[in-house]
Amino acid sequence: MKKLVLAYSGGLDTSYCAKYLSKDQGFEVHAVSVNTGGFSEEEIATIKEKALQLGATSYTSIDAVKTFYDKVVKYLIFGNVLKNNTYPLSVSAERIVQAIEIVNYAKKVGAKYIAHGSTGAGNDQVRFDMIFQIIAPEIEIITPIRDNKLAREAEIAYLKENGIEYPWEKAKYSINRGLWGTSVGGEETLTSDKALPDSAYPSQLQEKNPTDVTLTFEKGELVALNGKKDSPVNNIIALEALASKYAIGRDIHVGDTIIGIKGRVGFEAPASLIIIKAHHLLEKHTLSKWQQFQKEQLGNFYGMLLHEGNYLDEVMRNIEAFLTDTQKNVSGDVFVSLYPFQFRLNGISSKLDLMNASFGSYGEMNKGWTADDAKGFIKILSNSGKIYNHVNGEK
Amino acid sequence: MKKLVLAYSGGLDTSYCAKYLSKDQGFEVHAVSVNTGGFSEEEIATIKEKALQLGATSYTSIDAVKTFYDKVVKYLIFGNVLKNNTYPLSVSAERIVQAIEIVNYAKKVGAKYIAHGSTGAGNDQVRFDMIFQIIAPEIEIITPIRDNKLAREAEIAYLKENGIEYPWEKAKYSINRGLWGTSVGGEETLTSDKALPDSAYPSQLQEKNPTDVTLTFEKGELVALNGKKDSPVNNIIALEALASKYAIGRDIHVGDTIIGIKGRVGFEAPASLIIIKAHHLLEKHTLSKWQQFQKEQLGNFYGMLLHEGNYLDEVMRNIEAFLTDTQKNVSGDVFVSLYPFQFRLNGISSKLDLMNASFGSYGEMNKGWTADDAKGFIKILSNSGKIYNHVNGEK
Amino acid sequence: MKKLVLAYSGGLDTSYCAKYLSKDQGFEVHAVSVNTGGFSEEEIATIKEKALQLGATSYTSIDAVKTFYDKVVKYLIFGNVLKNNTYPLSVSAERIVQAIEIVNYAKKVGAKYIAHGSTGAGNDQVRFDMIFQIIAPEIEIITPIRDNKLAREAEIAYLKENGIEYPWEKAKYSINRGLWGTSVGGEETLTSDKALPDSAYPSQLQEKNPTDVTLTFEKGELVALNGKKDSPVNNIIALEALASKYAIGRDIHVGDTIIGIKGRVGFEAPASLIIIKAHHLLEKHTLSKWQQFQKEQLGNFYGMLLHEGNYLDEVMRNIEAFLTDTQKNVSGDVFVSLYPFQFRLNGISSKLDLMNASFGSYGEMNKGWTADDAKGFIKILSNSGKIYNHVNGEK
Amino acid sequence: MKKLVLAYSGGLDTSYCAKYLSKDQGFEVHAVSVNTGGFSEEEIATIKEKALQLGATSYTSIDAVKTFYDKVVKYLIFGNVLKNNTYPLSVSAERIVQAIEIVNYAKKVGAKYIAHGSTGAGNDQVRFDMIFQIIAPEIEIITPIRDNKLAREAEIAYLKENGIEYPWEKAKYSINRGLWGTSVGGEETLTSDKALPDSAYPSQLQEKNPTDVTLTFEKGELVALNGKKDSPVNNIIALEALASKYAIGRDIHVGDTIIGIKGRVGFEAPASLIIIKAHHLLEKHTLSKWQQFQKEQLGNFYGMLLHEGNYLDEVMRNIEAFLTDTQKNVSGDVFVSLYPFQFRLNGISSKLDLMNASFGSYGEMNKGWTADDAKGFIKILSNSGKIYNHVNGEK
Repeated sequence: MKKLVLAYSGGLDTSYCAKYLSKDQGFEVHAVSVNTGGFSEEEIATIKEKALQLGATSYTSIDAVKTFYDKVVKYLIFGNVLKNNTYPLSVSAERIVQAIEIVNYAKKVGAKYIAHGSTGAGNDQVRFDMIFQIIAPEIEIITPIRDNKLAREAEIAYLKENGIEYPWEKAKYSINRGLWGTSVGGEETLTSDKALPDSAYPSQLQEKNPTDVTLTFEKGELVALNGKKDSPVNNIIALEALASKYAIGRDIHVGDTIIGIKGRVGFEAPASLIIIKAHHLLEKHTLSKWQQFQKEQLGNFYGMLLHEGNYLDEVMRNIEAFLTDTQKNVSGDVFVSLYPFQFRLNGISSKLDLMNASFGSYGEMNKGWTADDAKGFIKILSNSGKIYNHVNGEK
Repeated sequence: MKKLVLAYSGGLDTSYCAKYLSKDQGFEVHAVSVNTGGFSEEEIATIKEKALQLGATSYTSIDAVKTFYDKVVKYLIFGNVLKNNTYPLSVSAERIVQAIEIVNYAKKVGAKYIAHGSTGAGNDQVRFDMIFQIIAPEIEIITPIRDNKLAREAEIAYLKENGIEYPWEKAKYSINRGLWGTSVGGEETLTSDKALPDSAYPSQLQEKNPTDVTLTFEKGELVALNGKKDSPVNNIIALEALASKYAIGRDIHVGDTIIGIKGRVGFEAPASLIIIKAHHLLEKHTLSKWQQFQKEQLGNFYGMLLHEGNYLDEVMRNIEAFLTDTQKNVSGDVFVSLYPFQFRLNGISSKLDLMNASFGSYGEMNKGWTADDAKGFIKILSNSGKIYNHVNGEK
Repeated sequence: MKKLVLAYSGGLDTSYCAKYLSKDQGFEVHAVSVNTGGFSEEEIATIKEKALQLGATSYTSIDAVKTFYDKVVKYLIFGNVLKNNTYPLSVSAERIVQAIEIVNYAKKVGAKYIAHGSTGAGNDQVRFDMIFQIIAPEIEIITPIRDNKLAREAEIAYLKENGIEYPWEKAKYSINRGLWGTSVGGEETLTSDKALPDSAYPSQLQEKNPTDVTLTFEKGELVALNGKKDSPVNNIIALEALASKYAIGRDIHVGDTIIGIKGRVGFEAPASLIIIKAHHLLEKHTLSKWQQFQKEQLGNFYGMLLHEGNYLDEVMRNIEAFLTDTQKNVSGDVFVSLYPFQFRLNGISSKLDLMNASFGSYGEMNKGWTADDAKGFIKILSNSGKIYNHVNGEK
Repeated sequence: MKKLVLAYSGGLDTSYCAKYLSKDQGFEVHAVSVNTGGFSEEEIATIKEKALQLGATSYTSIDAVKTFYDKVVKYLIFGNVLKNNTYPLSVSAERIVQAIEIVNYAKKVGAKYIAHGSTGAGNDQVRFDMIFQIIAPEIEIITPIRDNKLAREAEIAYLKENGIEYPWEKAKYSINRGLWGTSVGGEETLTSDKALPDSAYPSQLQEKNPTDVTLTFEKGELVALNGKKDSPVNNIIALEALASKYAIGRDIHVGDTIIGIKGRVGFEAPASLIIIKAHHLLEKHTLSKWQQFQKEQLGNFYGMLLHEGNYLDEVMRNIEAFLTDTQKNVSGDVFVSLYPFQFRLNGISSKLDLMNASFGSYGEMNKGWTADDAKGFIKILSNSGKIYNHVNGEK
């Protein structure tokens, strides 16, 4: 029988795939879901039950939270990556790791087919297919949703005919949760002019009293929260739990999809936004001007290629080497206050702080140099401009 | 007599200069202040009175608000320039225009000397001196504060001896106001870890009920507020008046000074932050991916050189030509809501919106292309990765 | 009858298309060739005769040499564009202009179809199709060669059956000539390790005595050769005629195709290489350091997008605005010597030369500043490094 | 006695320093020369003799050829660094390593003073002083040539008075030799329009018969020449010996000095030019498009900062990490032919060549994808342009 690995999420589209591929297409369907932070154990148990009921031969849940952090999230922090200056790439980053885990699983179990439930109109199909084809060009990709273009009603009817009845009612907002944030789509995000209502976001304001949080970084990684040491993954989870009570980190991303059309998606990502902004502030104190200049360019570029599914391009490894090297000195505490719907960065403390009082303070005359040194500095700094003006005449 | 133009602000340092240069150094002092949005008419009248009392032969107030907008602010908006992703360059941008106005004034009146009150430890001396030297290398620059390094007390005593008694008590926070924002320095900004207290900011929360504002842009310029057409300068002023009641736009900038040390300065810049973010959102809807990519790089670079006093480098004109050309399609309305301490961007409306429903929506299958087109696209997009992996073996 | 515009070159592939589309597919074929510098009048007459004989209803030759210069070549010079630091983009740049001319012609004559003879394995199909689809999405694109994948022999046989007998013998090297250079493909360019033999290049060494040439630029454009004023297009043609006698400007370009595979192509482009290098030298004397820095980045990026057929992306217009603005001062003479197989740049002469002896010479102490100025300059330039080392300890 | 380390070259300026500092200024002078490839053993012996005769307490020659390669040259190759697309940074790169070696020597021997012979008008003073000040801010820098601005005649007269008579006649061309090339300055390089005469270059044409050379790279380093394995340093030396017989690698660099004026300097650098061009060609075959894109930007930036003496900025280490990571696959043979005054790159051979015939050849239809795949690819690639044109109307 034809062995097929199905990227299974428990939703209507992939449930349709499970049934359709196993029953009508004669595949031996091995359902797999890759957890990058979005699923609880109960949810996984429910997904498993569903998969088997739909005709899957096996179901496997791959825990990829740490892999996701190690392969991607870490570098998004190092690079302060916010796509279009707004979006922490919550979903797009996850897809990459999910695709890699799935294709590796397929190779391990000797499957000759991989199926996923993406449509032909979005980014995810590109991210999945590219990684599958690059890592395993010998495996055939099966995409019933993209190929058949069935409406939801037709899928539900098909499942009903086959004895599967779940309450598939379409949620008003499609929610996609992961370690690095949650995306929110709905009718407003299909317009250009409407914001999402507060109620569309998964977290609601629960805490109105401000609180202070200290984030401790070591070589760019979040190693402690309020002085409590833990793994970066656990610190992200703990910060998310705390900050989501303040309904922090909501916004809408507007961007260019890989297929050339513009898209808009809401998101809620309190931990990632706080961490990136805190980390960036620490870098302003510990990195040189040129380090920051190059990091900004390379970080943005890294985010663009990741977003577009180009994670496997070797330049990504090269940039990761660069980013890792820049983090040698990015260690210290960052002091943050949380308020309803917002947070503020108060300051930092670091042994490697380059704003070092022993050397001279901004705006105050100091021991490091004299007035004449400053004048000489400026005079020579003006040379090229002076010559330019002299040669080109008065402007 | 030796004719000298003094950049005069009415503060202690430049008041000391006025007296010292006219009485002790025998200069004919022509005091000039350049208004880039920070002075009211009453303040200017007070400054004038002071200047003449201190021994200045003449006093002139140059209104450079529109010049400031035309030469600098406009491009900061076009380029979405926030230094280190935070600071709208409020003060540094003003200094450039002030320097140009002063040196042009000095040339007009035939002065052979220009004096300013900057110390030898900050950025302003560089911005002033560079522009003076480049535009008028024949004019000598006189800087008593930088050269003599007098303490405040000594300056006050000197003025007292010379019959000038003003209440020079040092304000707890030094405030620098202009069209594009207000900077706030104080003892906290000399540390790395302390935020400014709310009371340090010039505007206090006066309005708690949210309100909606519509910003209308034409070719990148803010031409109307809530549908009311006016000049960009007036719209900025009106938005500042409205948004400052919400205490919006406070933050602390941490950056590298031109002289190589790190500095930290608070600021309050509600209008500039709202305008830049609104303008940027409109661009996400109206510009191509590569336009945004290049704008980000050039905008940041433009901000860096401006901040460092390199405004006269010819590359700045070239980048302005680029930025202006990118704004051809940046027209439309941006919908913003103001809340205490924050604002939210709700969306945009533009005839030139590239997120055009008639073409296909993100995530929904559409008429523009088929599933097979998408598969072909991805297959060929994967070519280079496939070859790389094939040649380099399994990774 | 279905009106179709065929991009016709006179070669076997497009001759097959002309016959096949008019006879078998029932199209009314209007053959068009766009001359971007490669065709003599005699060649055009021959092409016309062939086209009509093959069944074309009409034949039109569009002279686009000046358009090619104005729309593309001019900016390649302004940007010193050499793809991968080697290739003046001779052929790829022409394709863009040819595509635009053809689609505009099709719209003018009301054709609903455009046909071209590109295969499915190269860059040209992408350049043609993209421009056709963007400018005229309503026109259908017909590509028999790509679709039918006929061997040369089959095409020849088909034409013979239909009474068309030309000596179609495959040239050992496929030559593609235009204003901005000639490409040369052959069995060696399909390998990675072999150079093209001298005989493969269209021009052979005819002149062994070195000669001097003066190139005069005005705002970046080549306005005179050896003091003789003429249009830039004519100057390019004249320089090509002169320099090709020295067999100058041969090389092999290795690059990434749009479809993700690597390709290799020989070229002979004496005029473009000499002009770009001479123009670049003049810029080193007349532009500021930062102008050169940004020009290099934007020029390379412009070349990349042009090469990949993205000429119509609006960012290209923005970059052209930038490049044009940079050329304000790029005026003067450049002195070049031609030798067999190579040329040397001797120097330049320009009123706007920033290497101006009146200001100070490199390496010689001068009036512009003192030893103390230099020391102050360096001391302050060292500040950030000193602080870094101090904070981070000895390295 | 005040211990001082003098950077000593044996030339007039530093000889004057040796005498002046030891006799008139009362320093205990420890002369040091750092060999980065320019000195033979005989020359070092002569320099030593001179130094001691001039009153130096000790003389030390530091062999830094390998250090120079490991710290700098290696990365210049990895980054294909040619300043302003021309100059391999021969001299500026050496100065960095010389400065580091000298300051480390001074710290080792406990000297409180370092002296060098640079003037106040060039780049070298900046490179030396910056590195001295950053690494050892406690050491005082002594620069008699810069401070006293003596004419050559006065220096010679002073030495004569003090019993030192050498034939100090000024060479017509000042030559500066090192591992990575030789610079040549003379009266022509002080003009903008004159080339150096052939005779000014240290190597003259000795060999007219072309020869072939194979350069073997492993992870970007030159590990063999014509199949003979040796250290990269030895391979560079051997290639220089071979290629200089062909008078290859001469040119003139025009660039911006650190102090803001333009400068012009001739150079002869056959080995560095051949190696960089050969290495670059190998990269075109073995790196992805985006790797090459980012390498170009970072390589140029690295060269700019190195040239300007910013070698110790931490961003340089970060870029070195990036560059090193890009070299993982840059292994293979490059085939070069040497001719009088020029060389040609014939091709490469590498197991990691991405131009892999098994996958599909440029311009030939192949098994990897179909005509329909290509059409789908192009259709979707055109989406953004189509939408742009649709929204913005016909252009």
